[in-house]
Amino acid sequence: MGSKLTSRSADYSKWYNELVVKADLAENSAVRGCMVIKPYGYAIWEMMQKELDRMFKETGHENAYFPLFVPKSLFEAEEKNAEGFAKECAVVTHYRLKADPENPGKLIVDPNAKLEEELVVRPTSEAIIWNTYKGWVQSYRDLPIKINQWANVVRWEMRTRLFLRTAEFLWQEGHTAHATKQEAVVESELMQQVYADFAQNFMAMPVIKGVKSESERFAGADDTYTIEALMQDGKALQAGTSHFLGQNFAKAFDVKYTSKEGRQEYVWSTSWGVSTRLMGGLIMTHSDDLGLVLPPKLAPIQVAIVPIYKTEEQLQAITDKVNIIADELKAKGISVKFDNRDTHKPGWKFAEYELKGVPVRIAIGARDLENGTLEIARRDTLEKQSVQQSEAVDVIEQLLKAIQENLWNRALEYRDNHITFVETFEEFKEIIENKGGFVAAHWDGTEATEEKIKELTKATIRCIPLEFKEEEGFCVFTGKPSGKRVLFAKAY
Amino acid sequence: MGSKLTSRSADYSKWYNELVVKADLAENSAVRGCMVIKPYGYAIWEMMQKELDRMFKETGHENAYFPLFVPKSLFEAEEKNAEGFAKECAVVTHYRLKADPENPGKLIVDPNAKLEEELVVRPTSEAIIWNTYKGWVQSYRDLPIKINQWANVVRWEMRTRLFLRTAEFLWQEGHTAHATKQEAVVESELMQQVYADFAQNFMAMPVIKGVKSESERFAGADDTYTIEALMQDGKALQAGTSHFLGQNFAKAFDVKYTSKEGRQEYVWSTSWGVSTRLMGGLIMTHSDDLGLVLPPKLAPIQVAIVPIYKTEEQLQAITDKVNIIADELKAKGISVKFDNRDTHKPGWKFAEYELKGVPVRIAIGARDLENGTLEIARRDTLEKQSVQQSEAVDVIEQLLKAIQENLWNRALEYRDNHITFVETFEEFKEIIENKGGFVAAHWDGTEATEEKIKELTKATIRCIPLEFKEEEGFCVFTGKPSGKRVLFAKAY
Repeated sequence: MGSKLTSRSADYSKWYNELVVKADLAENSAVRGCMVIKPYGYAIWEMMQKELDRMFKETGHENAYFPLFVPKSLFEAEEKNAEGFAKECAVVTHYRLKADPENPGKLIVDPNAKLEEELVVRPTSEAIIWNTYKGWVQSYRDLPIKINQWANVVRWEMRTRLFLRTAEFLWQEGHTAHATKQEAVVESELMQQVYADFAQNFMAMPVIKGVKSESERFAGADDTYTIEALMQDGKALQAGTSHFLGQNFAKAFDVKYTSKEGRQEYVWSTSWGVSTRLMGGLIMTHSDDLGLVLPPKLAPIQVAIVPIYKTEEQLQAITDKVNIIADELKAKGISVKFDNRDTHKPGWKFAEYELKGVPVRIAIGARDLENGTLEIARRDTLEKQSVQQSEAVDVIEQLLKAIQENLWNRALEYRDNHITFVETFEEFKEIIENKGGFVAAHWDGTEATEEKIKELTKATIRCIPLEFKEEEGFCVFTGKPSGKRVLFAKAY
Repeated sequence: MGSKLTSRSADYSKWYNELVVKADLAENSAVRGCMVIKPYGYAIWEMMQKELDRMFKETGHENAYFPLFVPKSLFEAEEKNAEGFAKECAVVTHYRLKADPENPGKLIVDPNAKLEEELVVRPTSEAIIWNTYKGWVQSYRDLPIKINQWANVVRWEMRTRLFLRTAEFLWQEGHTAHATKQEAVVESELMQQVYADFAQNFMAMPVIKGVKSESERFAGADDTYTIEALMQDGKALQAGTSHFLGQNFAKAFDVKYTSKEGRQEYVWSTSWGVSTRLMGGLIMTHSDDLGLVLPPKLAPIQVAIVPIYKTEEQLQAITDKVNIIADELKAKGISVKFDNRDTHKPGWKFAEYELKGVPVRIAIGARDLENGTLEIARRDTLEKQSVQQSEAVDVIEQLLKAIQENLWNRALEYRDNHITFVETFEEFKEIIENKGGFVAAHWDGTEATEEKIKELTKATIRCIPLEFKEEEGFCVFTGKPSGKRVLFAKAY
């Protein structure tokens, strides 16, 4: 447990780092930029995986697994993709260590075990997958291919933060192949919608759906569809992306099919992914100065029950009551932990479950036994109520729904209050500097302006929202004509 | 589909390789020794994962995730472990590629991006995990730690075969820390039992539980508990191992705890794993010359339904019937695929489901509609029966159980018929050479004899079976006294 968290208002970044470690979610490892995901953090990730995996399968995708390594010659085949990732990739050059003749007990790389061709540890798998699809596609009958992979990837980032930006991270990457452009576009949009639905219905995290400007696109994509969330410090988080890849990878890897009409055509493709970065989004959307706040649908423990007792007899009587209630809760699919450890005091346990974001906490003591009651506390509002034991199961079931909804509403209200429409660059700077959040502004569509605004304000174009309509206006920076607003923000 | 499989009797090894590829389980990739696990193969692996994961959690383990990379200085800390894996590990030496000035469009390793310390791609994770546990363990209250990880690992094997031995493979690795030796031994044995139960109850694959001889132990273990299966060609397959690691890793990484009595003690540990190698075991235990044979409990599709029709009206009438039956089957948790593709003929589909090992295949045609019947074929015995539609669901449910049981009985009978007790080295050689399977023989307990027997016969000690009792005898090779028989076999 240790001491209290730094408050969000004092230092948001420090609060986040402390929370991740103290709530037993993750920690830094001996490997630069790589994290250890601890059991409690991993349990949350598993719940995310389970729901996402179900959603992928319901939309017609299958899982598969492709190699960790990408031979350099394949890696460089799609030029833009290679250029985008070359600067940050881990490279395997040797396949053996040997005893160091000068330092007994130490090992050195064996110079005689140099690989003929270097292997890149996948930063993303388009190259190795499209080289594979080449062998799978001959005719239109072989299409579409709709595959997802759960995997680890490595990007040698210089500045890393637990979950948000790590050298190795866990993710899923979908890679689909289609006969027509239209089908591939529909797929990219569908997966963006799947991500948005997941963010809303499970993470209780509002997101804005949009497309990226050219400079923010995935390397090798013709279009990148994104979902953008807003953290409590007013910074945006890119939470998931779905790429329409055109025929870029099909051309790079020469993947053609024979159409019904007998013509040879290049295949159209998409890729889409979310990662353990979502953990960072989940944490920063809901948590408070006492610790983590988890939406019930992603909480590994939904209800923690703490007995308050002086004698073994009391504990036994409490245990008997709790077992009945816990069994009923479990029968409804609600996860329950009865914390009867005698090594820690109730107050310590309360603080722990607060820190770990358990949605509902129950306390039950000797007085409760007499009165047939128990105390129910909700993590989101910290409200407590005394409830008849006979009503406890119903109350808890309703409460879990209410908490999920409240977290969503709270986050949505915050987000909606942090989209500011501006007309001048003065306003723009003022909002970015002081209020934070998204700024909806006209932009002249040039990379030069985008770059200049970033230099001056650190704000980038998060997306061109799908819901924004055409609207005549003038670029907030250059005054040139613009047909649509885009969303700027500082971002993680 | 392509042409027929090579028969097992003609060339077992070729049969296996063809089957893995033709049944869409896996294929070789562009990376030496690394495989692509295709959707159908991965679906089977996912079913294995799901059951194993449940069993691990039921025995008190939690999942977590540790880094892919092990810094060389940590890798070498436990000397025996390092020595065991140094010869076959992939080493990351650089973290960037750059444009090749001499070849436009090509990339080279950037010599200015050399890592200060090389990173080993984990061949197994004891080193990185024990370096982490060091920070987690202070007091006896922090113990036990019972963690499992699902991950990819890399061992640069020279001769690889799909699933059985690949440079990268998927596995789970459990890593536990305990206060006492007794507890760690109990854990190692428990996990061996979990593996044996999984092999029996889900894979329908009989295994022999035993301990490894010293030379076959995991590098860094004090004892390796193994489950050994027998393939149809008489070769053994090590299917899972559980290691009692003593205090070896605790000492290498200085992991101590303060006992209840206030003493500083080194922690005791275990590790245990099974991998995608199990897929090879599953395939080779049950399959035949027509293709894969899957035990129903691990079959992604348990029932395939093929309509036989000439007109669209017939298809519609069949579909209406099938939907009712399929819904009933699904309600019982049975997975069903109604294959109404018009791109392939029924005969082609029959052959495909045979090749893919679908346990039950149903054919339903116009005549069946008139008679209220359908045809049910079981994959294991190839028997067919005509059944009233009203009875189909019950029949199928029973049949799936019967197939699971039959596969187990068949494999058990084969295995039991292939354990031969021998007293002389002549017999030993004769059995290993001609009959195959396990040979139960006395051994003098020395590595020299083990090595010599291996040289002469290619047979190795698979294990010292737990069920073998003490028995006076003489080493089959040296004639020296021996107190127990051990099992030899040629092995994968």
